[in-house]
Amino acid sequence: MNISADQIKKLRELTGAGILDAKRTLEEHNGDFEQALALLKEKGLKNAEKKAERIAKQGLIETYVHGGGKLGVMIEINCETDFVAATNEFKELAHDVALQIAATNPQFVSEANIAPEILDAQKKQFAEAAAAEGKPANIVEKIVQGKLNAYLKESCLLNQSFIRDDSQTIHDRIQVTIAKLGENIIVKRFARFELGG
Amino acid sequence: MNISADQIKKLRELTGAGILDAKRTLEEHNGDFEQALALLKEKGLKNAEKKAERIAKQGLIETYVHGGGKLGVMIEINCETDFVAATNEFKELAHDVALQIAATNPQFVSEANIAPEILDAQKKQFAEAAAAEGKPANIVEKIVQGKLNAYLKESCLLNQSFIRDDSQTIHDRIQVTIAKLGENIIVKRFARFELGG
Repeated sequence: MNISADQIKKLRELTGAGILDAKRTLEEHNGDFEQALALLKEKGLKNAEKKAERIAKQGLIETYVHGGGKLGVMIEINCETDFVAATNEFKELAHDVALQIAATNPQFVSEANIAPEILDAQKKQFAEAAAAEGKPANIVEKIVQGKLNAYLKESCLLNQSFIRDDSQTIHDRIQVTIAKLGENIIVKRFARFELGG
Repeated sequence: MNISADQIKKLRELTGAGILDAKRTLEEHNGDFEQALALLKEKGLKNAEKKAERIAKQGLIETYVHGGGKLGVMIEINCETDFVAATNEFKELAHDVALQIAATNPQFVSEANIAPEILDAQKKQFAEAAAAEGKPANIVEKIVQGKLNAYLKESCLLNQSFIRDDSQTIHDRIQVTIAKLGENIIVKRFARFELGG
């Protein structure tokens, strides 16, 4: 079996796994990259879920200004210790998230930040539009779910495709850093000002 | 009559008046600095009021991050043209305002941005506190006004004393730049994030 350094490197980039962990998982799956990736992502997700309970009050306020002052973004991104907040990997994550917000203009951090009234109003609007098109009731439900997912993917930062690698969502991008740095990480809030907007 | 270059310089700093205007006003008042200052301020205010009607949609998004990422401020400050937005004087004003917000944590840009409910609740609270102390009704009103003014001076950016020169309010600081640059200038909005806050 031939496991290349490139495979291990790519696997680590996409999951945040350690070298030995990435190598062993590839070996155990006869070098099948996709299988190893799926397994390590699942493992990372479980670890991240365990960490999600931990209090994250350290971190960074990061800003990004574009176009000579025409557009600005400010975020608060939290981790557990100021040691991790000072690492390059955490700073890179903060920068990536600020860039993403500048480029894509999300309305919320995650679905949990949307007021129930707003979500209900969206669902109602999607259902009425589908019904107006004469779709049968059993199809309307599926259409609503599909449109709702598209709405969340557009309006929620964590659900968005990462602009620098659209194989990942922003949620995935954060998970990778959680796996690498071993701390809970949360995007707490953001503001985005566009001149005259 | 002896009018010094220092007097003219100081007068210009405090009012944004031109050299000739500052000199002439001093001459007309026999070198009385305080009289000239009061007159030029009033004149500047009238000019600024005229300009306040003009549409200000250009400007800058300015950010300021303090303490290595522990505290961040982002503001939108508007003027009328991108020519003025690119001047050092406008940039300095933007920076001064961002620093002010970082230092003093105002809640609103100006009194006009306070929701009437909040203002009413504050007044009620001040009146009840004064009444509870057994103050007579005719005094309560004066106490409420005094406490309200103190509240506005603390919570509204424009009413605050400028941290780098407490002889001016932030409103005054902006008026000086309006007088210098000849355009309407507005602090439109700001955000202030404190880590874990």
